[in-house]
Amino acid sequence: MNNTKLLNKRRALLGPNVPTFYQHPVHIVKGEDVWLWDAYGRRYLDGYNNVPHVGHCNPRVVEAICTQSRTLNVHSRYLHDTLVNYVERLVATFGEGLDTAVLTCTGSEANDIALRMAEAMTGKRGIIATDATYHGNTSLVSQLSATNAPQFGFGLDQYVRHVQAPDSLRIDDPQGLRFAAQVQAQIEALERSGIGFAALVVCPLFLNEGFPNQAPGWLQATEQVVRAAGGLLICDEVQSGFARSGSHFWAHEKQGVKPDIVTLGKPMGNGYPIGAVVTQADTMARFRGGYRYFNTFGGNPVACAAAMAVLDEIEQRDLQANAARVGQLAGELLQALADKYSVIGDVRQSGMVFGVELLADATALTPAPEFTDQVVEAMRERGVLLSKLGLHKNTLKIRPPMTFAPEHLALLVSTLDGVLADLLAQA
Amino acid sequence: MNNTKLLNKRRALLGPNVPTFYQHPVHIVKGEDVWLWDAYGRRYLDGYNNVPHVGHCNPRVVEAICTQSRTLNVHSRYLHDTLVNYVERLVATFGEGLDTAVLTCTGSEANDIALRMAEAMTGKRGIIATDATYHGNTSLVSQLSATNAPQFGFGLDQYVRHVQAPDSLRIDDPQGLRFAAQVQAQIEALERSGIGFAALVVCPLFLNEGFPNQAPGWLQATEQVVRAAGGLLICDEVQSGFARSGSHFWAHEKQGVKPDIVTLGKPMGNGYPIGAVVTQADTMARFRGGYRYFNTFGGNPVACAAAMAVLDEIEQRDLQANAARVGQLAGELLQALADKYSVIGDVRQSGMVFGVELLADATALTPAPEFTDQVVEAMRERGVLLSKLGLHKNTLKIRPPMTFAPEHLALLVSTLDGVLADLLAQA
Repeated sequence: MNNTKLLNKRRALLGPNVPTFYQHPVHIVKGEDVWLWDAYGRRYLDGYNNVPHVGHCNPRVVEAICTQSRTLNVHSRYLHDTLVNYVERLVATFGEGLDTAVLTCTGSEANDIALRMAEAMTGKRGIIATDATYHGNTSLVSQLSATNAPQFGFGLDQYVRHVQAPDSLRIDDPQGLRFAAQVQAQIEALERSGIGFAALVVCPLFLNEGFPNQAPGWLQATEQVVRAAGGLLICDEVQSGFARSGSHFWAHEKQGVKPDIVTLGKPMGNGYPIGAVVTQADTMARFRGGYRYFNTFGGNPVACAAAMAVLDEIEQRDLQANAARVGQLAGELLQALADKYSVIGDVRQSGMVFGVELLADATALTPAPEFTDQVVEAMRERGVLLSKLGLHKNTLKIRPPMTFAPEHLALLVSTLDGVLADLLAQA
Repeated sequence: MNNTKLLNKRRALLGPNVPTFYQHPVHIVKGEDVWLWDAYGRRYLDGYNNVPHVGHCNPRVVEAICTQSRTLNVHSRYLHDTLVNYVERLVATFGEGLDTAVLTCTGSEANDIALRMAEAMTGKRGIIATDATYHGNTSLVSQLSATNAPQFGFGLDQYVRHVQAPDSLRIDDPQGLRFAAQVQAQIEALERSGIGFAALVVCPLFLNEGFPNQAPGWLQATEQVVRAAGGLLICDEVQSGFARSGSHFWAHEKQGVKPDIVTLGKPMGNGYPIGAVVTQADTMARFRGGYRYFNTFGGNPVACAAAMAVLDEIEQRDLQANAARVGQLAGELLQALADKYSVIGDVRQSGMVFGVELLADATALTPAPEFTDQVVEAMRERGVLLSKLGLHKNTLKIRPPMTFAPEHLALLVSTLDGVLADLLAQA
């Protein structure tokens, strides 16, 4: 099918407003490690996708999926080894206390559970999130989005309060005290309203917010505020986890905080649908006691086999060290570009997620979202896939598979160099 | 791992109150078509599982999953053919008007969307369901459960009203007029309360309610009541769909109704996590317009390839006809058992789902839930897996893969014959 026909069929069959990337969406037919191919045989370097965490069509993961799919795939009301073996291995990667899990199919389902756990533990319903975040698509969880906020959803928006997202370029908050004070103010507002404060939900790297530069431990002051109010700290590690930060397996460790609940999703099964909620035994018992939760596909043997293979790949290929090494190199190479192009207002990097903030005016720190769009489109035209994000829609989002190597990075950065040079020459 | 160790590890790692089947849960290691094997090499006939719709480890589905997993698995913000090809083929199985779909990972996610669509279309939030149903596990959808009702969930229980589940043995309602009147009463109660009526959600075969015997068209009176009130009819075809009813591909056709929204899940990908919401273009547009819905794993190429292979199997092996033929035979064989054992108070059958209601007193129609438990356990001891359900927990639930053949049925029924004879002799 050609792209026009595909787009028309999508619109007819899926309805309007279904997101696609790029003015002329890419029609992808094949993937391998950090590479994607379109229907015309063109190869793209994948600088965007975190779901294929250990590489597109990773042979070990594919083999695990195929072998287990041929052997058994059934729900968890029968006993099977893979479920307990995987959960045992998963919780061993967390610090003391975080030693039980519910397996789900998606990060959205995981966050939906986490919020109910918070209600179960506190008897309250007020949830605080940042005003530039995204935590998933259920009726409840989608209410956490301030941008593209849902126009309906059973009145659940009443339970959500937003705090201003951190912005290391514009907001002077080196130790996170200002952020903590904002959380405190929203806690007080929730308590005054009668709703009460149940939990704060954050991505420890603030990835949707534009991954601001933060000193280690930046969230500690906020954690203290949350604890003092009797609320729960939920860390959404759907994007930030599984060693992506480079320095730690879980990004909340980098922040020096101990979440009550951690939620997982996207990269967990390298694309096979699986998510999880990891928490303490008492929180799990309270949830399980008040809720006969069962998830038909959650923790099925194939999902667990895929997820186990992902952990094997991360460990045996030491992809955490790769994320640290390639990420640091990315920071250096992007800084060199920033020295060359004044349109680059800031360099961001946190392990295997990096990017630059593009500015229309370097002094006034005016964002350049349209120019950022042009860069994203031009990169695609030159065979490199990446995206943009953040409060101001002016930060390049480069978040490749964890197998991204220095030579891939070099290609990406040199392509970006060429794109910036050409776009600025045209301007 | 032995079963004791596995159970202890489950309790430690997953928390309390995690459902398992049987007093001594089965430890399953292998599946093939209608057979499962435990860790001790014992083979079981699977009379229970509907998720492996076209048989455990169906070779065509496994091959589709493996081939596509080796080629590409990526989200739908790029274009790929499998998504539109699958949705095109899926909606072609529905009647006129039901021609757009959202793909999700689970039936729970699908029902969570369906309820939001109902709110979007009506501007109201009141949902009606039966008092013996189950539609899924999200914060919103789980509130539809009257039995095992959640103890918390952000106050969403306020939007749910229950009507008495149909019970063809005890409630005289041959044309569904009594049921329709109950729905009407709850609609009026919702309107009076200020919440307003948005939708009725039902499984067209009332499978969780004990699949009562109903004449075709039984739901039509209810449909009229729903339409007259300006509400939506949501048919949850997670269990009843994909030709299981034998007479129709979708069970709502058997009921002679035209739902506004149909939700799908369990059997859709033969165990690969995939679900869907199918609806009219205007409902889809309203939902998509008010909600920038995106599901990372939803409609990924592997899920679509698996789901396409399921449709191929149903069609090419004519499993709908098999469900009709084997189902009818099941009804006849179970009726012969009912003639032999007075403990059998009623025979139920609706295509490839069948069972008997077991009574302690045939005149007073007193349910025999404990005896039903004994039957389920004894069947397992003799190598046949099935379960029980219904309002009174006294109906055997036999809902095997659609490839269940007459010889499998004969084995199941003869085993049940022996179990009933022995248990009744002991009593």
